[in-house]
Amino acid sequence: MNVYDILAARQIHLPGARQPSALYEPFAISGQLVFLSGHTARQDGRAWVGQLGTTMATDEGQRAARSVAIDLLGTLQAAVVDLNRIARIVKLTALVNSSPAFTEHHLVANGASELLAGLFGTVGHARSAFGVAQIPHGACIEIEMVAELR
Amino acid sequence: MNVYDILAARQIHLPGARQPSALYEPFAISGQLVFLSGHTARQDGRAWVGQLGTTMATDEGQRAARSVAIDLLGTLQAAVVDLNRIARIVKLTALVNSSPAFTEHHLVANGASELLAGLFGTVGHARSAFGVAQIPHGACIEIEMVAELR
Amino acid sequence: MNVYDILAARQIHLPGARQPSALYEPFAISGQLVFLSGHTARQDGRAWVGQLGTTMATDEGQRAARSVAIDLLGTLQAAVVDLNRIARIVKLTALVNSSPAFTEHHLVANGASELLAGLFGTVGHARSAFGVAQIPHGACIEIEMVAELR
Repeated sequence: MNVYDILAARQIHLPGARQPSALYEPFAISGQLVFLSGHTARQDGRAWVGQLGTTMATDEGQRAARSVAIDLLGTLQAAVVDLNRIARIVKLTALVNSSPAFTEHHLVANGASELLAGLFGTVGHARSAFGVAQIPHGACIEIEMVAELR
Repeated sequence: MNVYDILAARQIHLPGARQPSALYEPFAISGQLVFLSGHTARQDGRAWVGQLGTTMATDEGQRAARSVAIDLLGTLQAAVVDLNRIARIVKLTALVNSSPAFTEHHLVANGASELLAGLFGTVGHARSAFGVAQIPHGACIEIEMVAELR
Repeated sequence: MNVYDILAARQIHLPGARQPSALYEPFAISGQLVFLSGHTARQDGRAWVGQLGTTMATDEGQRAARSVAIDLLGTLQAAVVDLNRIARIVKLTALVNSSPAFTEHHLVANGASELLAGLFGTVGHARSAFGVAQIPHGACIEIEMVAELR
C-alpha cells in the first residue's frame, strides 16, 4: 500500500526537511539506515516551549509529539525522495522536557508512535522515552529516529 | 561456548520479552543489528522506583541495572529465539534517574555490563551512561541496547 | 584528501584511545559502523566539571565540546588504525550538563561539529543535543558518536 495514500486518508501534510538550527545535517544515510537528527517540537513557526509536569499536561505533550513525528516524516521524505522506499521505522528516542515529578514520558511519546503506526506495514518500532533537564530553545519534546531503506 | 551453559552456570534465569507499557515494540531487527527498546527497572512485578543520590545508593542502583540487563537478555532471546545467534552486544545506553549531585552513573551501569561480560565471547560493548531528570513510572534506571546477529 | 594533512594544517593533535572509567570498551565495530562510547569532557587530565547555565557559559561549553571531539577522533583512530578508512561521521549525540534555564545545547554542541567539519569530505553528520541532569564525574558535556567505515 502506498504510504502517500495513507497520509492523504489521514489528512496529514508533510513539511519540507527541517532546517537545523546549528552546524549539522537533518539526516545521514549509512547503508540501509537513515539516521534523523533530533527534531524539537515547533508550533506556529517557533519552538513549542513547555515542561511536562509544570506548564504542560500529558495530552498537550502528545500533540507536540505527534507534530514532531510529522516533521520527522517531512525530513525523511527529503532524505529518500519517495517514502515508499522506507521499509520500516526502526527506532524512536523521545526526550521529554519534564519536571522530576512527571512519569508519563511513555504516554507523551505515544503521540508520535500513533502517528507512525501502520504507515510502513504492520511492524512497529523500538523506542526509548525519558525525561531530560532541558531541550534546545526550551522545546517541550525532542525526538530522533532511525529508519530502514528497502 | 554455548551462552545457555554460561547463564546456567551463573544461575541466571531469563524472563520472556518485556511487554511494552505503550505503543511500541520491545525490539526491532534491521540487517545484522537488533535494537532493543529502553527497558525500565522492575522489581516484584512493578516499577523499581528511586532516584540515585536521594532515595537510592550506588550499590542498589547496580542491582537494578543488573536486573534490567537480565530483562534485556530475555527480550533479546524472544527476538532471535536462540541467543547463540548473537555475535556480540554492540552498545548499551544507561539512563540513570539521578539528582544533580550524583556523579557515579558509570558505576551504576556497571551492574549491567558485569552481567553481560563474557556471555558472547571476549569482546566488550560500547556504552554511554548519564543522569536524566526522570524515567517512565519513576523507575531508577532505563537501559537500551544494540546487539549484533552472527 | 588525507585527513592527517587536514588535522596537521589545523594543528590538531590526537590523543590515544580514551580509557573507559568503568567496565566497557571505548568503541565497538559492527559491520560498517563504528559505535564510540560516550566520552566525557576532560581538562588537564581530570573531569572538566561544570554545569551550563550556572557555573559555565556557552563559549566555555563549546571549548569543552571541541576537546571531546578531539578525544573521540583519538579513540576512532585507535579503532580503525588509519582515519582515512572513515567515510563519514554519521551521528553525534551531545549530552549537556545544564540547568533547567539553559536552552543553548545546540550552540554548545557546535564546538564538536565545527571541529569535525570537513575532515571526512563535505557531507555533515546528523546530531541530537539536549540537557541532562548530570554526567559521570560531574563533567560538563558527554558526546557519543557513530562513524562509518569506507
